[in-house]
Amino acid sequence: MVKSDYHIIHESTVYVDGGTIIIENSIGKNAIPVENVRSVYAHKPVSISSGVVSIISKLGIPIHFFNWYGNYEATLWPKSKDISGDVIIKQAQKYLDIHERINIAKSFVSGALHNFNRILSEYDTETVKKSREDIKSNIGNLTNAMDITEIMGIEGRSHNSYFKAMDSVIPEKFRINKRIRRPPGNMGNALISFGNSLVYASVLTEIYFTHLNPTISYLHEPSERRFSLSLDIAEIFKPIISHKLFLYLINKKIINENDFDNSLEKVILNEKGKKLYLKNYEEKLTSTVFHRTLKKNVTYQDLIRMEVYKLEKDLLGIKPYKPFIIWW
Amino acid sequence: MVKSDYHIIHESTVYVDGGTIIIENSIGKNAIPVENVRSVYAHKPVSISSGVVSIISKLGIPIHFFNWYGNYEATLWPKSKDISGDVIIKQAQKYLDIHERINIAKSFVSGALHNFNRILSEYDTETVKKSREDIKSNIGNLTNAMDITEIMGIEGRSHNSYFKAMDSVIPEKFRINKRIRRPPGNMGNALISFGNSLVYASVLTEIYFTHLNPTISYLHEPSERRFSLSLDIAEIFKPIISHKLFLYLINKKIINENDFDNSLEKVILNEKGKKLYLKNYEEKLTSTVFHRTLKKNVTYQDLIRMEVYKLEKDLLGIKPYKPFIIWW
Repeated sequence: MVKSDYHIIHESTVYVDGGTIIIENSIGKNAIPVENVRSVYAHKPVSISSGVVSIISKLGIPIHFFNWYGNYEATLWPKSKDISGDVIIKQAQKYLDIHERINIAKSFVSGALHNFNRILSEYDTETVKKSREDIKSNIGNLTNAMDITEIMGIEGRSHNSYFKAMDSVIPEKFRINKRIRRPPGNMGNALISFGNSLVYASVLTEIYFTHLNPTISYLHEPSERRFSLSLDIAEIFKPIISHKLFLYLINKKIINENDFDNSLEKVILNEKGKKLYLKNYEEKLTSTVFHRTLKKNVTYQDLIRMEVYKLEKDLLGIKPYKPFIIWW
Repeated sequence: MVKSDYHIIHESTVYVDGGTIIIENSIGKNAIPVENVRSVYAHKPVSISSGVVSIISKLGIPIHFFNWYGNYEATLWPKSKDISGDVIIKQAQKYLDIHERINIAKSFVSGALHNFNRILSEYDTETVKKSREDIKSNIGNLTNAMDITEIMGIEGRSHNSYFKAMDSVIPEKFRINKRIRRPPGNMGNALISFGNSLVYASVLTEIYFTHLNPTISYLHEPSERRFSLSLDIAEIFKPIISHKLFLYLINKKIINENDFDNSLEKVILNEKGKKLYLKNYEEKLTSTVFHRTLKKNVTYQDLIRMEVYKLEKDLLGIKPYKPFIIWW
């Protein structure tokens, strides 16, 4: 059975009754099947009562909290006893060796750029063609980049070109124009921000299941007051999960203007919109693709997990890290 | 107002009522004055209900869990948003430089050994005199130690000699004979184990208030599946808090046989005994000494905090670390 994420989208109380975790809110009272849950996402205020922390702690289930705008806020992760500092030392060692750090940072950006182009390859406007050429040449430039600033610059330019290309294949009302993050300024940005936040949290969940420390990163500076390793790895998965879903939801008219709340000075998904988005996000995350090397079906969630383990294997000197690039 | 620790010694339910955190158990219902609480210690099963996690998370209060034997088990520490990897990188850097690592490890052991001798200086049996000589010569040997194993060996030998000396100044029934940790085999070991666990958790609390990662350590290996930095720093404080309290409680006959439960094959403090010990531990931790450099009174808790900050300052290259040694 594939474990999936459990999203709480109504203000709720969560408590234990006879060994079962119960969630109670305006729509009723239900058991949470914790044995099938990988992590919990709280999109509205949640009260966690007696015993829940103890049970989820034993099962190792993290709870991610999102704020009103759909941005990731915090994670409640009960301390595991299975902790040790040796992998963290190796993580830091790779960061401190500037040559090694640059190589890993390039891998993340290379993965992202290849996946940008793979997403765009399904369209053929002039802007798309131009952008794919730009990105292709940026992948070439990446090889010669000498420092992190240069690598970040290459990513930033590719990113701009990529979103411009995306705007050319979607209805005008959903155009991104310019990525505005906090708070999102239009419907396009609201969808991309929400999706990216979810990818970030999905990666963070998988990092927690390894021995890696989420604050030690290579592309992003560890001094960012975020789980910067999650930012690094999310670069690879944002295009294939968040952006792909964005294009699908609006081009298939699954999400429309009625799914947004723009009564405030910012635009965010309303409850109906969030519910719709999360349903599709979970479907995406648990949908499978055939893995060429493993010769079996794997979910997108598996792909993220494998990515984190690949990084851990690199750090432990078992196998050099190569980023995930869509092969299908 | 000095913040103190809050110990839960009865099976309890903790919940929020009108913005106040309430603790309810067999002895009644009370408000927990969270604004004066530094950390919470759960010595019995505790149910934490709606809103408590959210409030203690905002206030940054950790909850330490202890098991039946009085050993530290786990900490629930809601993720702070104020995290970054740069200090961890510096911590790892010092670990990776073997010369630097050895220096820090020696400082911890040197602090511990000086404090061993300071505790013993209040007694003058022949065994004590002999032990103080041994420890003094071990402090000398420390300077020439070439690796961590040698440093650990010096500490181990001093430790044995120190406990033998302690046995010579206490009633026979409380003698330690041989340190047996899990589970403690006699009343002496039970008291030392409980006290040491509390010191370990007190140090851990202070580490959490810095940016240091508790799994990266210097004397103990980071590969130990514990918060090994807390083990490192606790070496310095165990003599002056746990051992000093041990000698005080039994020589003043404050704790006696009736405070133990030895119906099982191991000896542990019973509820009355734990309560008595914790009361004295908290008094010790919040009692003050005049600080020579700061020219003001500081609590033992302050001393631990300052020790952790001294280590952080060393890592950030501000000031080399010198261990705390009793000056009074």
